[in-house]
Amino acid sequence: MRYELYYWSEIQGRGEFIRLALEEAGADYIDVARKRGDGVIDQLIERKGEKHPPFAAPILKAGKRVIAQTANILLWLGPRLGLAPKNEAERLWVHQLQLTITDLVVEIHDTHHPVTSWLYFEEQIPSAKRRTKDFWRYRVPKFLGYFEKVLTRSGGPWLTGRRLTYADLSLFQIVEGLRYGFPKRMKRFEKKIPKVIALRDRVAKRPRIAAYLASERRIPFSQWGIWRYYKPLDG
Amino acid sequence: MRYELYYWSEIQGRGEFIRLALEEAGADYIDVARKRGDGVIDQLIERKGEKHPPFAAPILKAGKRVIAQTANILLWLGPRLGLAPKNEAERLWVHQLQLTITDLVVEIHDTHHPVTSWLYFEEQIPSAKRRTKDFWRYRVPKFLGYFEKVLTRSGGPWLTGRRLTYADLSLFQIVEGLRYGFPKRMKRFEKKIPKVIALRDRVAKRPRIAAYLASERRIPFSQWGIWRYYKPLDG
Repeated sequence: MRYELYYWSEIQGRGEFIRLALEEAGADYIDVARKRGDGVIDQLIERKGEKHPPFAAPILKAGKRVIAQTANILLWLGPRLGLAPKNEAERLWVHQLQLTITDLVVEIHDTHHPVTSWLYFEEQIPSAKRRTKDFWRYRVPKFLGYFEKVLTRSGGPWLTGRRLTYADLSLFQIVEGLRYGFPKRMKRFEKKIPKVIALRDRVAKRPRIAAYLASERRIPFSQWGIWRYYKPLDG
Repeated sequence: MRYELYYWSEIQGRGEFIRLALEEAGADYIDVARKRGDGVIDQLIERKGEKHPPFAAPILKAGKRVIAQTANILLWLGPRLGLAPKNEAERLWVHQLQLTITDLVVEIHDTHHPVTSWLYFEEQIPSAKRRTKDFWRYRVPKFLGYFEKVLTRSGGPWLTGRRLTYADLSLFQIVEGLRYGFPKRMKRFEKKIPKVIALRDRVAKRPRIAAYLASERRIPFSQWGIWRYYKPLDG
């Protein structure tokens, strides 16, 4: 089956969690907006008669199916791409981990835009600094410490043990994004989460992921979307 | 099966989405922290040897299973309580709606604590006012307008058509919470979403829900957790 991914063409954003899964599996897919422009996203959202109208991108079209919400797309795609366990309880567990990553992604975004997305970063610097301070003091240790614990319990090298799942690819992306947004802070923090970093390194070396990261299909990090670098926040 | 819900004993919070589903189904459950104190939550989170350690409450114990993340708990519970469709595609669709409610809940919380949860509301009033303004100008119309559209597409009276699901109960809770937190703003807004309000009324009249709401099991709204009333934010 050829999958169609609908996501903004100029950012990694939430779409990247889907792209990484499709790439690791060597799936046949089109990144539709990169081919035909971002207008296709709203066209799909507004499409008349769609029984399951999406709220927002990312959206996956698979035949007649239209699925939205990042973690929900991965829940459906995972087994089809060989990136989820067979057993139902384990499958829900991977989904649970993905939902915790989803929560973390919101908090990462809000470091640079805590007050509102309708103001520029430059209009909310003091609030962004305060939010970022608490994010690194309390939230990063809680979230990444949690994934370190999960890797200890699973016996590694992956979150569920010996088989790679889409949640591992997403955790890789979290590390990459934090390194981009907060290079100094992340450098200091990484020694506390050796298992998470080892997982990141292992993902980066997988042949299909390495090829993807080196290709033009991987959109560079930028100053848009979730992952941004603002010097005042890297303390 | 007797279900055990682990959630903070003094707030509705995210646990309420689970409580409403258990109550509507007339399920046999214990609200564990209300019986034995909030300490049980951390005990469960820190329990040695747990293969699927939760990140945070709410947590559902069902026999030996330990499941966390509100939407994930409902994904698992829904079919067991008769509150989810039988068909896999429809079941994922209800989950997708629940994940959109999850996103909305974060935004509701952040109206009163946009900068950080480690400051009091009183220390971030100007930011909270700005956030709340944009929330009511852009986000409430987008989210609740979306659910109004879903109800139009489904033909009603429920989000998926003729059968009640857990997502309907959650949407009821969203309306109740917005009425509590922003009575004036919500009153003005409600005429734009007649189908959502009709759904809310229909849920409130279901015998088990009505009995629950009138009982001591329903924790009152307060100034803690997601749902709070601050006069300066109700413009």
